[in-house]
Amino acid sequence: MFFFQLFLLSFIPSTLSHDGFNSHLLPRPLIMQYPEHTETRFEKSNEELELECTSWRFAVETNNLSPWKTIPEECGSYVKDYMMGRGYKADLERVSSEAGIYAMSLQLSGDGKDVWVFDVDETLLSNLPYYADHGYGLEIFNPVEFDKWVQRGMAPGMEPSLKLYEKVLNLGFKVFLLTGRTEMQRSITIENLTKAGFRSWDKLILRDYEDHDKPATVFKSEKRSKMVEEGYRILGNSGDQWSDLSGSSPSNRSFKLPNPMYYIP
Amino acid sequence: MFFFQLFLLSFIPSTLSHDGFNSHLLPRPLIMQYPEHTETRFEKSNEELELECTSWRFAVETNNLSPWKTIPEECGSYVKDYMMGRGYKADLERVSSEAGIYAMSLQLSGDGKDVWVFDVDETLLSNLPYYADHGYGLEIFNPVEFDKWVQRGMAPGMEPSLKLYEKVLNLGFKVFLLTGRTEMQRSITIENLTKAGFRSWDKLILRDYEDHDKPATVFKSEKRSKMVEEGYRILGNSGDQWSDLSGSSPSNRSFKLPNPMYYIP
Repeated sequence: MFFFQLFLLSFIPSTLSHDGFNSHLLPRPLIMQYPEHTETRFEKSNEELELECTSWRFAVETNNLSPWKTIPEECGSYVKDYMMGRGYKADLERVSSEAGIYAMSLQLSGDGKDVWVFDVDETLLSNLPYYADHGYGLEIFNPVEFDKWVQRGMAPGMEPSLKLYEKVLNLGFKVFLLTGRTEMQRSITIENLTKAGFRSWDKLILRDYEDHDKPATVFKSEKRSKMVEEGYRILGNSGDQWSDLSGSSPSNRSFKLPNPMYYIP
Repeated sequence: MFFFQLFLLSFIPSTLSHDGFNSHLLPRPLIMQYPEHTETRFEKSNEELELECTSWRFAVETNNLSPWKTIPEECGSYVKDYMMGRGYKADLERVSSEAGIYAMSLQLSGDGKDVWVFDVDETLLSNLPYYADHGYGLEIFNPVEFDKWVQRGMAPGMEPSLKLYEKVLNLGFKVFLLTGRTEMQRSITIENLTKAGFRSWDKLILRDYEDHDKPATVFKSEKRSKMVEEGYRILGNSGDQWSDLSGSSPSNRSFKLPNPMYYIP
């Protein structure tokens, strides 16, 4: 009930901050009563929202939540501010730098079997322009619209990830890209990655026909297990979803990139 | 170098906020130069610190960092404010509530083999009174001092965890406590847990002599694997360290409680 009160109080700032947003997709309740002391109540509301949404974001990033389809409605402005502001950038830079320090600390065997696995979406390529047009996670995922975006091949590269990517390539890692994108998206994915500055990967593993219905955790675990069977050592793994990182044949170390906009099981 | 500048700027607020702190343990640099526009610079500094320390906390909670011994010096006030303010409480309540929803969603087999594993320190019992006297993670861990604190048996119970604990007991889970504390601390641990309201656990597993030198991940993985060998199904696991949750024989779902004060490998 606490959240519901906040939601009512947050009606105005939340609406204002979503200019250009398809409001018909997200019916909002009418305000039936105005709070008595508007200013102080609003102030409290912002502070409460910051607290609650930060707590929600921690629960997302630590994988404490059950599968979720959209971000909490009252956290729309919070997620937008985080993604478009300095928070997201700071977190991306930190994870890139930590992963780089780890990569440099390793003594590679030189037999060409030391692997770094990268996910693609929200790990190397950013779909933020798409999500900015779709409420930063407030809207239920629309696969048709999203596929159109992917087919444009316009997703920008993520600078901190590119830095790590080039570092591990230069250190002599094999680079395997393991993505939930499908084989039908192979050529546009290659085009987009190349345009964004990513080059010289050793494998690009996409979902084949028989993988389509598998949860990402299962699909990616199977592919990692295959790598291990082939004698590869997975020393690093970068992904924005826990389904990129957990499951069987995990990497020696995994690096969780931030993503409060969507959840893939 | 960015961090170093912030550190210099944060000298005064950081010192003020650590009343009663053993400053001789943490030599602080002299300020050699004052910034030109003190007020605006301080304002920016606080905002920067908030951003950097929040980002650091995310890296901690997602297990992105290499093993660390103390919190960043410039984040001392931030961690104190988080732990003593509403942030920590909100995060504890959320993880308890998410775990409770998951626990209730399960259909237990009724054969007495469905298990919920709980860590003890910073999961059921709070050592916050100790850490409040020791810089909230700014000081290097002192095992002698900490053992004295443990022997007092005064660690308060964590209310949100007690709520989850009672819920899973009432649902019919076996409750196994798996802690890095040693067998020598068994009786005081039982006394402290009981005093804090925890009761009716099915096993209390502590480090035996041969476990003393094992990293927590290894020790806890071995004990979980033993549970699985004995036919138990580990359906839930609550812990404040990734070493409580990762490794072999992981739980079906793990719940990461917040802890930005220390790291156990």
